Amino acid sequence: MPMESKVIVVRAERAPMAGVVDPGPHQIYRQPTVTIERRSLGALHPDEMRVEMICAGVCGSDTHVVQTNPETGYIRSSAPLRIPAAGRVIGHEGVGRVLAIGERVRHVKPGAYVTFESIIVCHYCDACRRGRFNQCRRARLLGLQKDGLFGTVVDVPSLLSHDVTALAGSEQGLRAAACLEPAGVAYVACQNTCVSGGDRLVIFGAGPIGLFAAMLSKMVFGAAEVHVVEPVPFRREFARRWSDRTYDVEEFFAAPPRAIDVVLEASGEMSNVSRVFRRLNANGRVALLARSGAALALDAVDHMITNQILLVGSRGHLGGAFASLLSLYGNGRFPLDAVVTGAVEGLEGLRDALRSPEQIVHEHCKLLARLPDAGPAER
Amino acid sequence: MPMESKVIVVRAERAPMAGVVDPGPHQIYRQPTVTIERRSLGALHPDEMRVEMICAGVCGSDTHVVQTNPETGYIRSSAPLRIPAAGRVIGHEGVGRVLAIGERVRHVKPGAYVTFESIIVCHYCDACRRGRFNQCRRARLLGLQKDGLFGTVVDVPSLLSHDVTALAGSEQGLRAAACLEPAGVAYVACQNTCVSGGDRLVIFGAGPIGLFAAMLSKMVFGAAEVHVVEPVPFRREFARRWSDRTYDVEEFFAAPPRAIDVVLEASGEMSNVSRVFRRLNANGRVALLARSGAALALDAVDHMITNQILLVGSRGHLGGAFASLLSLYGNGRFPLDAVVTGAVEGLEGLRDALRSPEQIVHEHCKLLARLPDAGPAER
Amino acid sequence: MPMESKVIVVRAERAPMAGVVDPGPHQIYRQPTVTIERRSLGALHPDEMRVEMICAGVCGSDTHVVQTNPETGYIRSSAPLRIPAAGRVIGHEGVGRVLAIGERVRHVKPGAYVTFESIIVCHYCDACRRGRFNQCRRARLLGLQKDGLFGTVVDVPSLLSHDVTALAGSEQGLRAAACLEPAGVAYVACQNTCVSGGDRLVIFGAGPIGLFAAMLSKMVFGAAEVHVVEPVPFRREFARRWSDRTYDVEEFFAAPPRAIDVVLEASGEMSNVSRVFRRLNANGRVALLARSGAALALDAVDHMITNQILLVGSRGHLGGAFASLLSLYGNGRFPLDAVVTGAVEGLEGLRDALRSPEQIVHEHCKLLARLPDAGPAER
Amino acid sequence: MPMESKVIVVRAERAPMAGVVDPGPHQIYRQPTVTIERRSLGALHPDEMRVEMICAGVCGSDTHVVQTNPETGYIRSSAPLRIPAAGRVIGHEGVGRVLAIGERVRHVKPGAYVTFESIIVCHYCDACRRGRFNQCRRARLLGLQKDGLFGTVVDVPSLLSHDVTALAGSEQGLRAAACLEPAGVAYVACQNTCVSGGDRLVIFGAGPIGLFAAMLSKMVFGAAEVHVVEPVPFRREFARRWSDRTYDVEEFFAAPPRAIDVVLEASGEMSNVSRVFRRLNANGRVALLARSGAALALDAVDHMITNQILLVGSRGHLGGAFASLLSLYGNGRFPLDAVVTGAVEGLEGLRDALRSPEQIVHEHCKLLARLPDAGPAER
Repeated sequence: MPMESKVIVVRAERAPMAGVVDPGPHQIYRQPTVTIERRSLGALHPDEMRVEMICAGVCGSDTHVVQTNPETGYIRSSAPLRIPAAGRVIGHEGVGRVLAIGERVRHVKPGAYVTFESIIVCHYCDACRRGRFNQCRRARLLGLQKDGLFGTVVDVPSLLSHDVTALAGSEQGLRAAACLEPAGVAYVACQNTCVSGGDRLVIFGAGPIGLFAAMLSKMVFGAAEVHVVEPVPFRREFARRWSDRTYDVEEFFAAPPRAIDVVLEASGEMSNVSRVFRRLNANGRVALLARSGAALALDAVDHMITNQILLVGSRGHLGGAFASLLSLYGNGRFPLDAVVTGAVEGLEGLRDALRSPEQIVHEHCKLLARLPDAGPAER
Repeated sequence: MPMESKVIVVRAERAPMAGVVDPGPHQIYRQPTVTIERRSLGALHPDEMRVEMICAGVCGSDTHVVQTNPETGYIRSSAPLRIPAAGRVIGHEGVGRVLAIGERVRHVKPGAYVTFESIIVCHYCDACRRGRFNQCRRARLLGLQKDGLFGTVVDVPSLLSHDVTALAGSEQGLRAAACLEPAGVAYVACQNTCVSGGDRLVIFGAGPIGLFAAMLSKMVFGAAEVHVVEPVPFRREFARRWSDRTYDVEEFFAAPPRAIDVVLEASGEMSNVSRVFRRLNANGRVALLARSGAALALDAVDHMITNQILLVGSRGHLGGAFASLLSLYGNGRFPLDAVVTGAVEGLEGLRDALRSPEQIVHEHCKLLARLPDAGPAER
Repeated sequence: MPMESKVIVVRAERAPMAGVVDPGPHQIYRQPTVTIERRSLGALHPDEMRVEMICAGVCGSDTHVVQTNPETGYIRSSAPLRIPAAGRVIGHEGVGRVLAIGERVRHVKPGAYVTFESIIVCHYCDACRRGRFNQCRRARLLGLQKDGLFGTVVDVPSLLSHDVTALAGSEQGLRAAACLEPAGVAYVACQNTCVSGGDRLVIFGAGPIGLFAAMLSKMVFGAAEVHVVEPVPFRREFARRWSDRTYDVEEFFAAPPRAIDVVLEASGEMSNVSRVFRRLNANGRVALLARSGAALALDAVDHMITNQILLVGSRGHLGGAFASLLSLYGNGRFPLDAVVTGAVEGLEGLRDALRSPEQIVHEHCKLLARLPDAGPAER
Repeated sequence: MPMESKVIVVRAERAPMAGVVDPGPHQIYRQPTVTIERRSLGALHPDEMRVEMICAGVCGSDTHVVQTNPETGYIRSSAPLRIPAAGRVIGHEGVGRVLAIGERVRHVKPGAYVTFESIIVCHYCDACRRGRFNQCRRARLLGLQKDGLFGTVVDVPSLLSHDVTALAGSEQGLRAAACLEPAGVAYVACQNTCVSGGDRLVIFGAGPIGLFAAMLSKMVFGAAEVHVVEPVPFRREFARRWSDRTYDVEEFFAAPPRAIDVVLEASGEMSNVSRVFRRLNANGRVALLARSGAALALDAVDHMITNQILLVGSRGHLGGAFASLLSLYGNGRFPLDAVVTGAVEGLEGLRDALRSPEQIVHEHCKLLARLPDAGPAER
């Protein structure tokens, strides 16, 4: 079933930084561009499904691919990313309807509405076999290492899918389904820091993941208090509803809450962690979520030892979070759509938004795109 | 500081059942009586505090001490219990104000309002040293193995206390503080069964512990659905507010929910567990909370093996539950007082209630007693 | 690449027991036969590998398929099993050399020596996504629900494979590799009961899994004492080397060790659990491993509650045990081959052994078959 | 029962470093001296026991109290420490015989041989109530914040004691008992990093704790490989027996083992952690054990996030390690005495050794002192 699709493609100049032994994407790619292009879809891979996209979400890692560091000229993203010569179709959050399935697909039916995990795992390495999928040794990231979801029709490995047909009857349900992936990232971070009954949390960064973490920590993991630190006024204000208190960065450090049990760092600003460390309670836990390429200085090592404080990296959304969140949403226990602050129309709207990435950060928490009518391709 | 107190005393005839090798209390004590008596308090023990009681809660194990089995004539309680010749002051839930402290007490101040743990642990056995206080090898239960809280002024080991002065300014706060102990039992049961995000629970028994478990599982542990099974109409109706659905026993088994993740057995009726077992999901968990002296028959052993189902006994409230609950209540996240359905006045009211134990079960969830003015003693 | 293979096939009469609503295999199949047959292997499935078997292990579940219950006439196996009209190729333990791989196989190379997991999981159900592969909702068991390993050349899903080329240079290494699957079952049982430093264990049943559990609990999980209970003299004697003490059943109950921390039930005799239960320590743990179709009676429920004793079903070997065991064996830390008590030659030897299943139990712990030269097929 | 005792006393000049807001001991005390003094023991505290010391162990934290930083002149110890005007009796490892018990002591009998925990906990703070004794909010360290064990007769809180009468019949048993405390520290570090079957460890520092960690990780926690990095030749050589490989620091970094699962930092040299971090496997774990007052620089933050690497402080020996170790030693499963490299005679020998602290580090792993005959006091 060959088909035409229109997709959002990122292209960039490949110019590895001189003298860096093992450069990351933020040391390889320069001058990113975002265009809408027409693609012809060939035969469907036996293990994939062909999906007509209905709704897509914009993640910070999408905007980091098209933002550049003013000092170096390289893109901001330090996440695993490969931009081939033909460009990369980005996007890894969204909902669509299954048009067709590959011959070996068993668990998905055409006509079903699905959302997606965004980490393609190997099921064979030691991490996978231990059920630690988020650390798969051969993981490929959808929209970064394999073409993603920003298109009218896309092909996706069927094992990534979760059936959300029950949610597809309403605009709210579609928005909820499109937000499952970032909510899952926040869920895993709460698990990795063992958030539990009565805890006091501080969250740095009120983007979608920070905000979901604020909501989940109280509504699902039993935290008693959540303090959110966010420099951008719009996001800080938006976070108020789900927090006990919100702060600008310096405002926070002028008077942090006492005896913090858990810190979730979702801002990429490592100095926040250095500065808050001495305020951690006995058996305190800190998760780092945001890859920024920056280093971390810990001068409170003795405090860390005496109090058995734990610091852990956290990435991914696999391991059961999607099913737990769907169960909670389905029972009216967690408002998955509450982080959405706006929606653009079609691939054009999405392309235009990606061409002004700063605006997304300053005027939105989660921005969605409604995709049914994508208009003409540009090349 | 010698003082007079009035207390509620249970006396019983000691007549061990013939032919039982190692009889439990329900095979030793007959013809229990409940009276109010005057006691003279001597010198305060160096490690104890003298407390003027303000409010006390009636637990099922209090009523089981004064109820008898119609077939055998022995009391119903199978919990550890020793009734000395001078009678036993029962009661292990409540709030009071500290009048004085023993010379070695450091962490409590006269004037403070306190509530109490009810398990006196040794801090020395292997279980204590591993932090598994609920299984202390030398545990003594307040109000069962040591004189308890049903009195105007009582002496209590200071390490049992939790400061609740912040809650003492309101009637609601006092009720909340008085309910901390049974809430803690439910909290430990949720921990022992690893209740977590999205779980579907079935709870047998909507007494205070079952009801707290229903509330906690959703509000603190992230459960998505809670089904409550309770034969007594008043309690079943009262549980509706905190459950997704309530059932009579046969009504439940006519149509149990599918794929149950967690069962909490707080009714003492073991056949409920036998009957529900095959409905447990993979990695399902079952906690037994209610000592009844009865045996359990499991005929779904193959199902248990294939699905790695876990069955665990659960007792006690120690290990951090009080602090977690106080943090949650203090932040408006958990209504500790919501299980209270009524209050009697003074020791007389409490004595009269204990003389009609069936009525408590059929007309109340948690019954409190307000204690400031206890009136004249009877002997 | 069409090929000829010779395989061991079990056939049986399909005669479901009257009046049983949902019969297990032990209520469906009668009159099992074991023969060697010639099979023509067709085109290789894209996700499978074609393996020349070198060595195979005989498991209790293999013998249970060909043993019958003298009272009912049905086979003993209550594990998931489907015997099609063309018979079932049994066997799920062994080592082979990869002859060819399907077109979609990436992680295995022809020429490699491999051993196998025996549970084919779906990677899609909730249990799989949570990493609880042993409870996959759509699991198919190799050699029971899909044709297995008892043949000269067999086709196996490539994701089941573990590379053991490093072990293939010696007879001892091949034996070790062939024993990875039952060792993994014992490993998972030790994990499920949280065997840890200083524990005292009792193991019922000194077949390969019970014996591996005895070895692993001390050599890998830190147990201090292991007591093994086994009625068959040969196995009891063989277990002595890896145990602190071995017992016949009644000998054990005449004087069980005090304060047992962990019980592993690998004998299928549920009364052992009923009888030992009161001897369990605080926070004691019991795993049931052996499906027998029998029920379990627990009359020590109050003891279970007071002491927070845990009872859990345990099945499977997935979740990382293979990799852990290979690392331990490779560093000389665990003698995977130590349970082997003998080897028969070829498919004929294996067939003959399977025709005398009682003899395997009474004269062996783990019996292997060396497979390179299988001789002529019988039909 | 007033008695005379001779004890080893450390005195120091109290001269807080100018301009440091909250100075640690290493910024307060200068010019430490070590002398033997005569003390008159008064009435025995009701909760303590009077113990005749038989054997004592020298810990790094003992030598750090009497060593000075050549640049600043202050003592090296950054652990909690208070040296009163009358000096501090140091020492927190050892074995003795109970001479008498306070009136409230229940669990210890005169005549018993005991060893000691060295953290006096409050049993009342939130950490204690959660069973996290090593993080007690009001912990006092024996020999640092309260007079310790280096004496002929000492008074010790009875709850610290563990009965080792079963070990006291042999010199080897006494040595084993004297080593329980440092072994417990290593045990807790293995727990905090979840050392498990098949892991590959790197341990920095082959003092008693590092060496015990090497032994425990393999013999009790199931590690497959242990690599030990130690700059001091004597200790490095001594560690060979219990390691797969030993290294000098630069030798190690020239070729660290691949895919490290666990790093235990017991050397106080933070740069080791910075340098080894990128070699950590997915789900790798790092524990920091040695307080040095130094800061830690982590530049592999992205690696930490992608691989969910965990870094945790670890201190203390409480929580069950003593009982587990005693059970293991008693069953011949762990040679607690194997770290002992020598013993000095009496308090004089001990005093002389403490006056040459560098020598202890360069010529010993664990140095003991035999104490029955302490000779005359000096003041």
